[in-house]
Amino acid sequence: MSNAEMKVSIVMGSDSDMPVMAKAADILEEFGIPYEMNIISAHREPDTFFEYAKGAEDRGVKVIIAGAGMAAHLPGMCAALFTLPVIGIPMHTTSLGGRDSLYSIVQMPSGIPVATVAINGGTNAGLLAVKMLAVADESLNKKLKEYTKNMKEQVEKKDALLKEKGYKNYNK
Amino acid sequence: MSNAEMKVSIVMGSDSDMPVMAKAADILEEFGIPYEMNIISAHREPDTFFEYAKGAEDRGVKVIIAGAGMAAHLPGMCAALFTLPVIGIPMHTTSLGGRDSLYSIVQMPSGIPVATVAINGGTNAGLLAVKMLAVADESLNKKLKEYTKNMKEQVEKKDALLKEKGYKNYNK
Amino acid sequence: MSNAEMKVSIVMGSDSDMPVMAKAADILEEFGIPYEMNIISAHREPDTFFEYAKGAEDRGVKVIIAGAGMAAHLPGMCAALFTLPVIGIPMHTTSLGGRDSLYSIVQMPSGIPVATVAINGGTNAGLLAVKMLAVADESLNKKLKEYTKNMKEQVEKKDALLKEKGYKNYNK
Amino acid sequence: MSNAEMKVSIVMGSDSDMPVMAKAADILEEFGIPYEMNIISAHREPDTFFEYAKGAEDRGVKVIIAGAGMAAHLPGMCAALFTLPVIGIPMHTTSLGGRDSLYSIVQMPSGIPVATVAINGGTNAGLLAVKMLAVADESLNKKLKEYTKNMKEQVEKKDALLKEKGYKNYNK
Amino acid sequence: MSNAEMKVSIVMGSDSDMPVMAKAADILEEFGIPYEMNIISAHREPDTFFEYAKGAEDRGVKVIIAGAGMAAHLPGMCAALFTLPVIGIPMHTTSLGGRDSLYSIVQMPSGIPVATVAINGGTNAGLLAVKMLAVADESLNKKLKEYTKNMKEQVEKKDALLKEKGYKNYNK
Amino acid sequence: MSNAEMKVSIVMGSDSDMPVMAKAADILEEFGIPYEMNIISAHREPDTFFEYAKGAEDRGVKVIIAGAGMAAHLPGMCAALFTLPVIGIPMHTTSLGGRDSLYSIVQMPSGIPVATVAINGGTNAGLLAVKMLAVADESLNKKLKEYTKNMKEQVEKKDALLKEKGYKNYNK
Amino acid sequence: MSNAEMKVSIVMGSDSDMPVMAKAADILEEFGIPYEMNIISAHREPDTFFEYAKGAEDRGVKVIIAGAGMAAHLPGMCAALFTLPVIGIPMHTTSLGGRDSLYSIVQMPSGIPVATVAINGGTNAGLLAVKMLAVADESLNKKLKEYTKNMKEQVEKKDALLKEKGYKNYNK
Amino acid sequence: MSNAEMKVSIVMGSDSDMPVMAKAADILEEFGIPYEMNIISAHREPDTFFEYAKGAEDRGVKVIIAGAGMAAHLPGMCAALFTLPVIGIPMHTTSLGGRDSLYSIVQMPSGIPVATVAINGGTNAGLLAVKMLAVADESLNKKLKEYTKNMKEQVEKKDALLKEKGYKNYNK
Repeated sequence: MSNAEMKVSIVMGSDSDMPVMAKAADILEEFGIPYEMNIISAHREPDTFFEYAKGAEDRGVKVIIAGAGMAAHLPGMCAALFTLPVIGIPMHTTSLGGRDSLYSIVQMPSGIPVATVAINGGTNAGLLAVKMLAVADESLNKKLKEYTKNMKEQVEKKDALLKEKGYKNYNK
Repeated sequence: MSNAEMKVSIVMGSDSDMPVMAKAADILEEFGIPYEMNIISAHREPDTFFEYAKGAEDRGVKVIIAGAGMAAHLPGMCAALFTLPVIGIPMHTTSLGGRDSLYSIVQMPSGIPVATVAINGGTNAGLLAVKMLAVADESLNKKLKEYTKNMKEQVEKKDALLKEKGYKNYNK
Repeated sequence: MSNAEMKVSIVMGSDSDMPVMAKAADILEEFGIPYEMNIISAHREPDTFFEYAKGAEDRGVKVIIAGAGMAAHLPGMCAALFTLPVIGIPMHTTSLGGRDSLYSIVQMPSGIPVATVAINGGTNAGLLAVKMLAVADESLNKKLKEYTKNMKEQVEKKDALLKEKGYKNYNK
Repeated sequence: MSNAEMKVSIVMGSDSDMPVMAKAADILEEFGIPYEMNIISAHREPDTFFEYAKGAEDRGVKVIIAGAGMAAHLPGMCAALFTLPVIGIPMHTTSLGGRDSLYSIVQMPSGIPVATVAINGGTNAGLLAVKMLAVADESLNKKLKEYTKNMKEQVEKKDALLKEKGYKNYNK
Repeated sequence: MSNAEMKVSIVMGSDSDMPVMAKAADILEEFGIPYEMNIISAHREPDTFFEYAKGAEDRGVKVIIAGAGMAAHLPGMCAALFTLPVIGIPMHTTSLGGRDSLYSIVQMPSGIPVATVAINGGTNAGLLAVKMLAVADESLNKKLKEYTKNMKEQVEKKDALLKEKGYKNYNK
Repeated sequence: MSNAEMKVSIVMGSDSDMPVMAKAADILEEFGIPYEMNIISAHREPDTFFEYAKGAEDRGVKVIIAGAGMAAHLPGMCAALFTLPVIGIPMHTTSLGGRDSLYSIVQMPSGIPVATVAINGGTNAGLLAVKMLAVADESLNKKLKEYTKNMKEQVEKKDALLKEKGYKNYNK
Repeated sequence: MSNAEMKVSIVMGSDSDMPVMAKAADILEEFGIPYEMNIISAHREPDTFFEYAKGAEDRGVKVIIAGAGMAAHLPGMCAALFTLPVIGIPMHTTSLGGRDSLYSIVQMPSGIPVATVAINGGTNAGLLAVKMLAVADESLNKKLKEYTKNMKEQVEKKDALLKEKGYKNYNK
Repeated sequence: MSNAEMKVSIVMGSDSDMPVMAKAADILEEFGIPYEMNIISAHREPDTFFEYAKGAEDRGVKVIIAGAGMAAHLPGMCAALFTLPVIGIPMHTTSLGGRDSLYSIVQMPSGIPVATVAINGGTNAGLLAVKMLAVADESLNKKLKEYTKNMKEQVEKKDALLKEKGYKNYNK
């Protein structure tokens, strides 16, 4: 995918975050949005990370989606170095359930916002990026309305199934 | 301010949230972004709220900033009715410190993201809205870079003051 | 079951909540109370949800039992649109154990109460609905007293078994 | 107020809970619902408490509103002894913010529900009692709809004031 | 075991607490202390519970060990009805990890103490009961000192094993 | 007070804990129980502490009441060195509300129990010590029953005052 | 203070952290350890911060003490760029009490440790730096032992005062 | 390994902590640092523990790494008895996820710091010890820089793999 087209950069500090980050990528693919996907650690390779975040705008990146767990500094450090919006995904953690990741991402000091989504909220991070791009892209806006319609229909189907089978047989 | 110009809609469910929401408005004023500001309760006037949220796009709104406390449903219900980005500000609460507001805003189910900022993070909500608009607005991008430069200079001044006066006299 | 008879409406936003909501339905069946059961998402289909909640009273509904997880807005939004009692069931969640659901349901602002039961408390939600209906229904009151008597006898049986077998053999 | 008329019993374990419980009483007065109000401690006078809770139904009580703080057993013990609905109000506490009260009230075991409202939620407890009585009382149902209309008008007035004065002068 | 000899009463509200309560019984058996063990629910059979707790002193009971989970009222209600010490064991819970049980047991109001041990701390509850009885029983005091000596020796053996095998082979 | 008579030892690591520990001493004075009161830090003077805790039994001490805040090790280290019961009082803390103190005291490993009371629960710690001594002291048992009777009467007076003045004038 | 002598670098992201950081500086002064003190924000001036952290070793810095609040990235980012030990001080925060700061500092991923002290633990951060330098400096080791002796004497004085005045007059 | 060479002492209170403590030992082995490893319980064998901690300096120990869970007193008591740095590792716990261990270790009172690492952070505890020794050991400093370089290369390899395989095939 050429840089000229790139719109979103997905970045994670560890490949253990891949299953969650993949959901964000799935959404971008579904909406046909050019993106890059990187494994870069702000802690383990700060120089590489600095270059990445400072160079993102020149590569055409409009939105960064950064996922991190525990003392999750990646999204906040992206926001310190990148002018446009950064979306942060707090990873679930074994001991603290992701509260550590959530607080480390959402509680940013005044001046450096990170748009935080739910713990493990990869799909929502992808959708939020699409919504940001849709601010100035009518066709994305339309696709989002279709996506919403689809979600509605899926719920309706489940409700119809419940009405048909009754709750005792619903999962059978 | 004519609707034609409007870009951001600030909404709060209770006027007790005004001091925090005002910080978001301050940022929008500083960046010269047309906005509306409303007190509308999703719980106390759901019909009014529905009209507001469904009509926002037609009024030109590109981003909604919604603040709420306790069982904070306003941002999430905005996100259910408005296609473009919704930014949520969790209010500090006496008993649970704002954890209730934070969880009610950030833990949105898949498909309906809310871009959540810190507890009482009015300034960051405003900045995040500016960043979203800057995705397609070079002049806002430039202003954001100046804002960042300003922040840097303020820290540098404080550091210089510390070097000059020493820590024992810093606050004297 | 005809609407004329309907007394309780059970609603959930996602069919993943079915095992918990089924326990509420089991109680209503045990007490012979007419009910409807729906899968309707306040987030994914707000218009459908509005119609549902605003039309409930006309369908004869006296009590709504609403279950939801994470940023659980369904019970609170029911309470915004339905005049009679709403019972909320917070769902257990993987990352926050259901604290997110609990706070999003119980911490309702003044004016819009939700009668909240324990995390995953489907049985108690059903019983609470029965108790509300029993306020004006002597026969339900009697059935509730029998239910209580039954619970007592079950504990007595376990105690007798413990006395008979001793604790070391109790689970053998 | 004669027992014949009594509908709701408000009970608290300590007079330090009075400011919160008074809000529940205010609502009952506003809706013209006969009630009793007691200071009875399940811990400090269990026999008195037992008599109170077991005798409530004979005194005409249809709903109990019980408030308690810390290891808040009063609402749950009411629910063990009284067949009709018990509403629990968790009190704010200095050290744990009311989490202790909330968990002690809401996390009731299967079979013994307590309809829990927000921490310090006296007004909502009163309203929930009214809603329960309104299940079989059309005139209360109408009054509740008027109460809701009133709430809406109050928010509308605030919104109008904001539009008139602007946010910078709102609190001046 | 005849009532004349009884010293400790173990009580749980549900037989799901048996594995934890059994550890307390194991300790009492190890120290040769006469005890009774009951399944009695303060919520599901309050009358039976009242008789149990009020009659305990007449049965010779010197210490009650009460275990409970979630909104754990059993230990506190024992303390309201029994003059001598009550030891409370908070049960682990799926959703809140036992914080609910812990707060419901330890945060007792002034005047009604419960001697609380760790979540699922059955062994420690048993030992604490022995220590209370040892206040006036020299032979129990001696046995406790032996128990302590035993614990020390077990740790020493593990340390010796570590020295012998090295940490890499310790668990092999 | 001669050692021969001593029954209870109150110990705190810092004199900032005095207001809470004083409540425990008040109870011991009220019940006429000989006690000592010490400021000894397990962290700042471990040797002094060791001597204190190991020598307590020889000084006649039957129960230790230890209060501590934050990483509260004093009660647990007492329990490691003293054979008879140790009662722990977790101090309220500014940042974590006393959760740090509570967890550090109550979550003792198997074999070393600490009888934990509520955060800042000085009165209950004193009462628990009295109850432990009352296991083998009939006169203390009687005094405890009178204490309970007194508590009951105080609640009854408040209830009578409420009945007389009404809730609106209760605090006037 | 010349760089040649410098041993410790104190850094904070905001001058609101000064009162806590000053306690660390007080300790370094008391032990006669050369230090620098800076206000540098990793978020607001990442380039300046990078230079600072990467150049620290060349300036002679052996230990960095970094304090930060909320989404506290400063200590962790220091640890990513500086080879020798970094001590992190989590700042107390209004809404979450400092849990956000604590988790953001202590929950560092494998490979990048931060030596974390208590919330607002400025004095302990200073002492920990001294202890690290004392590993290879016998005179510092001696001074630390004197410091410990001093602490002990202060507790002893308080205990003597308690013995002299009694607890009722202790704070008079 | 002769005492003359010893630099670090690893200590745990229970052999259930071995898997985490082993990671610290692995790091010390990797960096060629002489160490001892002990299972000693401050609670179950306080005298042995006292000897251990007070004698550590004479055995050549420069840094203690202490791991403990629940009411984790071992690291703090080491810090009370040992002049040089103590590193504390909070163990994950089933009920509270390790919050109990973390608070018991990190929230040390002023004067007695423990350098706390993440929950289950064995590797980081080892690295922190190496960093402390590297303050006065250039060769260790160099090895640490190589370790960092290695970490960087591992992340780079993962990133290259992602670029090569794409995220959909990354884990295949």
